[in-house]
Amino acid sequence: MTSPAEQPQARTGLQLRSTVKKDGTLELSLVSIPTPDPKPEEVIVRVEASPINPSDQGLLFGGADLTTAKASGPTDNPTVTASISPAVMKGMAGRLDQSLPVGNEGAGVVVRAGESPAAQALMGKTVAILGGAMYSQYRCIKAAQCLVLPPGTTPAEGASCFVNPLTALGMVETMRVEGHKALVHTAAASNLGQMLNKICLKDSVGLVNIVRKREQVDVLKKLGAPHVCDSSSPTFMDDLTDALLATGATVAFDAIGGGKLAGQILTAMEVAANKTAKEYSRYGSTTHKQVYIYGGLDRAPTEFVRNFGMAWGMGGWLLFPFLGKLGDEGTKRLKARVVAELKTTFASRYTREVSLVEALQLDAIGVYGKQATGEKFLLNPNKGVAV
Amino acid sequence: MTSPAEQPQARTGLQLRSTVKKDGTLELSLVSIPTPDPKPEEVIVRVEASPINPSDQGLLFGGADLTTAKASGPTDNPTVTASISPAVMKGMAGRLDQSLPVGNEGAGVVVRAGESPAAQALMGKTVAILGGAMYSQYRCIKAAQCLVLPPGTTPAEGASCFVNPLTALGMVETMRVEGHKALVHTAAASNLGQMLNKICLKDSVGLVNIVRKREQVDVLKKLGAPHVCDSSSPTFMDDLTDALLATGATVAFDAIGGGKLAGQILTAMEVAANKTAKEYSRYGSTTHKQVYIYGGLDRAPTEFVRNFGMAWGMGGWLLFPFLGKLGDEGTKRLKARVVAELKTTFASRYTREVSLVEALQLDAIGVYGKQATGEKFLLNPNKGVAV
Repeated sequence: MTSPAEQPQARTGLQLRSTVKKDGTLELSLVSIPTPDPKPEEVIVRVEASPINPSDQGLLFGGADLTTAKASGPTDNPTVTASISPAVMKGMAGRLDQSLPVGNEGAGVVVRAGESPAAQALMGKTVAILGGAMYSQYRCIKAAQCLVLPPGTTPAEGASCFVNPLTALGMVETMRVEGHKALVHTAAASNLGQMLNKICLKDSVGLVNIVRKREQVDVLKKLGAPHVCDSSSPTFMDDLTDALLATGATVAFDAIGGGKLAGQILTAMEVAANKTAKEYSRYGSTTHKQVYIYGGLDRAPTEFVRNFGMAWGMGGWLLFPFLGKLGDEGTKRLKARVVAELKTTFASRYTREVSLVEALQLDAIGVYGKQATGEKFLLNPNKGVAV
Repeated sequence: MTSPAEQPQARTGLQLRSTVKKDGTLELSLVSIPTPDPKPEEVIVRVEASPINPSDQGLLFGGADLTTAKASGPTDNPTVTASISPAVMKGMAGRLDQSLPVGNEGAGVVVRAGESPAAQALMGKTVAILGGAMYSQYRCIKAAQCLVLPPGTTPAEGASCFVNPLTALGMVETMRVEGHKALVHTAAASNLGQMLNKICLKDSVGLVNIVRKREQVDVLKKLGAPHVCDSSSPTFMDDLTDALLATGATVAFDAIGGGKLAGQILTAMEVAANKTAKEYSRYGSTTHKQVYIYGGLDRAPTEFVRNFGMAWGMGGWLLFPFLGKLGDEGTKRLKARVVAELKTTFASRYTREVSLVEALQLDAIGVYGKQATGEKFLLNPNKGVAV
């Protein structure tokens, strides 16, 4: 066992905390916390890379209006506050006045290990980890939860091993399990969307990409995507219908959530289904058409016209319940694929690497808080810290 | 076998037809059609009662704007026309210029029978039938599809044996199969809603009724309904949440479809779920919350704010696919219950009985076309005809 005395820098570490206060204020700050002694089956990971994903930002910002964000305190230990509207506060009852750690996933180096052989075997290894509280210098975690990265893999390369790759693989698995033959994806030029394109090209699965800007069409065309529809184009509905006919896609995964897009997808699926139908069905096509909303890039209300018959569904889709249904064996299979294709299919790109202090600067929040496709930040909690 | 010669009046019969023309016009008219000679396994039913259900009106009116309805032709054989908007016409491609018969269900007397023993056994019996084209004086149908009504039951009493009773029973079955313990129903003072209340009271199933007017609360309270929420009341959301907490209902069946109600139900379910949750869940409650939209009394777009976490679903629900999944044995079990409780649980009330000619009068269409709760018409295709 490595003696704690040999790693004095690991005795305490900074951690990012998010608190929603009863008065409707969000408070973000850094706290110094003691690093626990690992139990026999545990290790301490020095986190060196953790993505700021849309799925982290719900917990991080608590739905606050970021245009109201203010910074206070010393430059090297800032506190950020912002206002949360009364409507959003209704959903916050369960977390009021709790100082919560943030960060779903990350990667780093094992710097201390409990006395079990499994834990000891990880000493010095670069590992990817999942489980929250990753926006921390040190994270204590069970050895069994560590995904060992192949030699030559940096923490930055392994930071996004779980959320995006497993979500992309999970969409394809869900499509298969529910009996669909191809799928639709929105906000399709995102890191996740690019992974999904690579998976579908590799596995010969039909994929209809929906993007919101002309330049994003080119990003996906360069990857070799056969079907990319631009929702800002005047011919969008016709383009989408054609792509649905060509692929036979009857399930969609929507990252946008708000506005009319989810309903438009169902409408186009219905038009496509009726083009191949042999007789008029008074309740619409009998083909089941499904849209899963897995993100909320647009917080506006969801609105749809019910012109797609009765065989339709809309609903939430979330990675962890999906993995729960898939079971341990299936999850292991997906994770093994992620590791094997980490530098190809599952490579992530980031626009900026920030330290914990930099992540709390208002200009940085102003950029990554927008969750714009192409703007993803990587947080390195040990950036600028002597290790 | 009964000789056709003994039943001269059955050689031809009037049938109501609906046509959507390419130019965007709906046309309703009566046609005289020859009554077929029944095959060995078939019978001819003289239809004497058939409800005009909301589920018939989609096919009947083809989404036409009824404020544009015009009548022409002789009084005893009118033609009604009305305009269909271009948006609605998009969904009509499959039925253009086809003269379609209408009427899901009905009841009447078997006046001719094929030579098989099963068909012969039905001669003179009063039966309930399902399968379309019921707005006809005579309907040829397989003997096996006839539900024989108990002696002393009139066609009017048996006219609504299928759609409403099986839908109400199907909702309770769906609730059970999908693991919910209580249910929510909207437009709850309807004939269907009253049946559902009687079923739930009898079977001790928790039911939350949602109505749109104060006087409808009283209708259901008189039936003994414990939970009736008025969506026009300023305290609606609190009343609904309390009723959801009291019953534990996590599935809803919504006849309205348009507007905000479906989303409000999910929101209230989430608030109720979080009141009993033990710790904060960042993705909302893990309780699956489901709203099935089975009708479209409000044709406006459906709109919802996604403040109910990720464990939710919305979708279409339709009786026939449900019965398909339930299977023959299950369907028989439900039908047997309907017959046994036809004059109690499944009794229907109608505001007016109309003939085929009367059903095409503009003043009648102006009333039943509104699909207002409490205004249900019964069509008697043989009314005023010597039999």
